[in-house]
Amino acid sequence: MPTPIGNHTLLWDAPPYIQGYAAVGGKKEEEGPLGKEFDRIFPDPYLGKQSFELAESELQKQAFTLALEKAHLPPHAVKCLFAGDLLNQCVGSTCGLSGFGIPQVGIYGACSTMALGLVLASAFVETGLSQVAAAVTSSHFCASERQFRFPLEYGGQRPPVAAWTATASGGIIVSKEKSPIAIKGATIGTIQELGITDANNMGAAMAPAAADTIVKFLTDTRLSPQEFDMILTGDLGTVGSTLLRQLTIKQGFDIAKVQRDCGLMLYHMEEQDVHAGGSGCGCSAGVLCSRILRQLEQGELKQVLFVATGSLHSPTSVQQGIPIPGIAHADWLEHEG
Amino acid sequence: MPTPIGNHTLLWDAPPYIQGYAAVGGKKEEEGPLGKEFDRIFPDPYLGKQSFELAESELQKQAFTLALEKAHLPPHAVKCLFAGDLLNQCVGSTCGLSGFGIPQVGIYGACSTMALGLVLASAFVETGLSQVAAAVTSSHFCASERQFRFPLEYGGQRPPVAAWTATASGGIIVSKEKSPIAIKGATIGTIQELGITDANNMGAAMAPAAADTIVKFLTDTRLSPQEFDMILTGDLGTVGSTLLRQLTIKQGFDIAKVQRDCGLMLYHMEEQDVHAGGSGCGCSAGVLCSRILRQLEQGELKQVLFVATGSLHSPTSVQQGIPIPGIAHADWLEHEG
Repeated sequence: MPTPIGNHTLLWDAPPYIQGYAAVGGKKEEEGPLGKEFDRIFPDPYLGKQSFELAESELQKQAFTLALEKAHLPPHAVKCLFAGDLLNQCVGSTCGLSGFGIPQVGIYGACSTMALGLVLASAFVETGLSQVAAAVTSSHFCASERQFRFPLEYGGQRPPVAAWTATASGGIIVSKEKSPIAIKGATIGTIQELGITDANNMGAAMAPAAADTIVKFLTDTRLSPQEFDMILTGDLGTVGSTLLRQLTIKQGFDIAKVQRDCGLMLYHMEEQDVHAGGSGCGCSAGVLCSRILRQLEQGELKQVLFVATGSLHSPTSVQQGIPIPGIAHADWLEHEG
Repeated sequence: MPTPIGNHTLLWDAPPYIQGYAAVGGKKEEEGPLGKEFDRIFPDPYLGKQSFELAESELQKQAFTLALEKAHLPPHAVKCLFAGDLLNQCVGSTCGLSGFGIPQVGIYGACSTMALGLVLASAFVETGLSQVAAAVTSSHFCASERQFRFPLEYGGQRPPVAAWTATASGGIIVSKEKSPIAIKGATIGTIQELGITDANNMGAAMAPAAADTIVKFLTDTRLSPQEFDMILTGDLGTVGSTLLRQLTIKQGFDIAKVQRDCGLMLYHMEEQDVHAGGSGCGCSAGVLCSRILRQLEQGELKQVLFVATGSLHSPTSVQQGIPIPGIAHADWLEHEG
């Protein structure tokens, strides 16, 4: 049974396990430090489809298919699929996963989507709502640029605080069957908004949300940052990570030694010219479902707090000058030896 | 504890209850058959805000606030909020509800969002993940027209199969405390796609999903349509409702006598010139949270299957000629005397 503790955190008493996981990416992701750890790379940004949006759908389909294969499960074993993405009306997930014929819950958390999906899949498995559940998400640089910024053909100059949307997808299968990766608990995030109106500066918009969720999790569980090998934030980049460390120190938690950021891990920051780092639902999903889960599986990492963050703006809200709210959801992952 | 039955349906053995609910709407909704049953009407389409999008956010804030008042609960009693809407990146929910400081799960199900939110809020309460949870959604005609079709100033001609996006919001508070409205079970929908590419003909795109979910629910529970006072679909309109009845009859379930559609109940179909009927997340939410829940509360309705449907397209996917997938989620509601 789940135990809600504090005001915000859920502990899974009989923890669900990660049965299978997979990450797929594009050419730029292959050229980054994690390139060889992706399950599959697609050098063609169209993945043989007619549009970037359909290419993004294909990424989800591939990531989910590979995760199922690694879990040795057929699609119909999955009783509930939690999926979302950055595209308007989440069409990436809809078109990518509709062919599997699985009950599907559409979720939206911007770049925090994988953390949110994993919270819900864990909750459904832990409480017996589903024997097996899955979380899938994606992003695609070309689809995202034209939706949020400018079409690539325009050649717009990117400001230094801007992030690079990953072309990637991750899929995770969760069940009660024991595996080396247990999911021990979760904190569902509360939206934070500190007045940032620059959509290029998402790190600053999301850092307060990451700080809020991390502090709530550590307070609720009475764990200290040092008990974790890694507190893995999603897509704060250089700007946001600095801000996050400052914000948590003010509340009595020094996370500098263990905090790592998916946005700073996916690319070679200098050589690949990604400015503030990687972003997009596919960034934290890709990093988690490649190196991090493998290291947890093999025991190279024992305790990880995965805290993906989302910047909850739309192009319209930014044009209207509405400050950008952020959210961060957390999953506590443990290697079981 | 929840009991998953069949392949798709969840029964709540110790059912959660609807503790409070509220519906708010605009001027056109006031002029419709349910006008007097809304908790609050806003004649100004801007609700005193600077944009239609912020006006939609205000609708959510008002609906949730009124639902809390009717439940006699402060905001912080709600431990998890499930909310979504039609606006790109779901900014209606983000901006409308961020001020409450409640852990929030962003959901996307297009016009099925209220049914999906209610499934998840029920699941969280029934399994002890949250003592109290809430579901909120909205739509706004003016914000939706310019996002999905044309800006109002353009004066585009609406085809006869087009629906009218409701300016409305509904909020529901779910808890274990007994009330006259029990939530007995749920079916999470599976995406269906039958090749419809006309975004004005959403009824036809969503009818197969409604049929699929209704047939699965009735098959799993071994209930017959006649055991329900009402099978309430969301936003199929005239075109989709006819198609739905044909599709369910083919599978052995004659629902004609009990099927009603939110899209056909919100407006006076002829006088208000709404073509195929109402639509939008606010349509089924508004109808449910005004007349239907009141009738369930007072025992005028005993058994209702609420099956809101969503058309999972985006303007981009439609322009690319991608067929429109539909989804329908179901909540089984019962009057407890």
